Amino acid sequence: MIGVIRVFTTDDQEVLQQHGKVITNCYGLPTVNRCIPDQPLGIFNDETEEKAVPKIVKLGKTLEKEGSKVLVISCAADPAIEELRKEVSIPVIGAGSAAALTALALGQPVGVLGITDTPPAVIRNLLGDLLVGYASPEGVGNTTDLMTPSGRENGLKAVQSLLNQGAKVIVFACTGFSTIGLADVLRQEVDVPIIDAVEAEGLFASLLLRQSLQTI
Amino acid sequence: MIGVIRVFTTDDQEVLQQHGKVITNCYGLPTVNRCIPDQPLGIFNDETEEKAVPKIVKLGKTLEKEGSKVLVISCAADPAIEELRKEVSIPVIGAGSAAALTALALGQPVGVLGITDTPPAVIRNLLGDLLVGYASPEGVGNTTDLMTPSGRENGLKAVQSLLNQGAKVIVFACTGFSTIGLADVLRQEVDVPIIDAVEAEGLFASLLLRQSLQTI
Repeated sequence: MIGVIRVFTTDDQEVLQQHGKVITNCYGLPTVNRCIPDQPLGIFNDETEEKAVPKIVKLGKTLEKEGSKVLVISCAADPAIEELRKEVSIPVIGAGSAAALTALALGQPVGVLGITDTPPAVIRNLLGDLLVGYASPEGVGNTTDLMTPSGRENGLKAVQSLLNQGAKVIVFACTGFSTIGLADVLRQEVDVPIIDAVEAEGLFASLLLRQSLQTI
Repeated sequence: MIGVIRVFTTDDQEVLQQHGKVITNCYGLPTVNRCIPDQPLGIFNDETEEKAVPKIVKLGKTLEKEGSKVLVISCAADPAIEELRKEVSIPVIGAGSAAALTALALGQPVGVLGITDTPPAVIRNLLGDLLVGYASPEGVGNTTDLMTPSGRENGLKAVQSLLNQGAKVIVFACTGFSTIGLADVLRQEVDVPIIDAVEAEGLFASLLLRQSLQTI
């Protein structure tokens, strides 16, 4: 079982399961999806990240105790990743580092698509000189704004601007893009690899879960 | 189709297909396996690497022309990877960078197992401070030496020494370990993730091949 940590609060089971569903669809492996308490708006600045860290650590420890063999922190900023790795004995994968590392395997100039003003530090640091551009879809301040036809269209426009800057690979720096299935839309429109952060975290988690099943 | 470039010369079809078979077994995707000409001993120093580079580039271009959608250079030193990326329009994955990047996704101290005196530069550079130790199995100068019971036993001993140095993840810096199935042996014996370089190159290649199939 892959334990999927959602870094906001929701009672909506469909929303809660979304990332796990992407992982199961891609890799055919079971997931359990949980969210942190009392942060319906998730992480959007330093203060809310600080508040979330102990909750993420606690949730990760609970998921390990309940039988998860791999954990994913399903947020492109990799919040609390170092703290959680110190507290559990199973692998912990972050969506942001997973997406950036997958792009590095391609060794081509990377354009990053996000919804914040700048890319998450973990993605910027890993990509280094391969990062050639960052863009966010116009008029999109949160992932809800994306779930409209104009949100998707502006997503495509932002990607085109990254390609014009020389990007040969696109990395999603927001897991909200996975929720709306933006990768599949873009793959029909542009001819470069699209690295979806949830697919990327699931990629590494699937390798590790299969290893852990082998040794049981 | 994933094009698998073997960086030595063989007429033995079983040997030639070995890495592709690992990838197909892990990810259920088809591969075509080819080797470079006139280098039965492969790459073992700067001179033989220099000789191999144009052959790898030529073979990669041929595989693209024949329909491969992703290429893997199935050698942990990633020979000719930059040169080949300039000459083809499809993704090129190297076994060495793929293995190192997979380990980075775990964020834990890495022990590297190889058969040469030092780890390949690409692996050393990517791992940076996370590289805590390097070892090679005693008495193993080439991958043929590994295919004996004592070769496997010495492989396990070398891994134990890496764990004693603080490694929490093991990365294979030689694709010959895949040929003998060392990862599966180790997974029964030690309780840390074992990153096999052929499984790792296949991991990224599988993601990219599935994307390319989606868009056809």
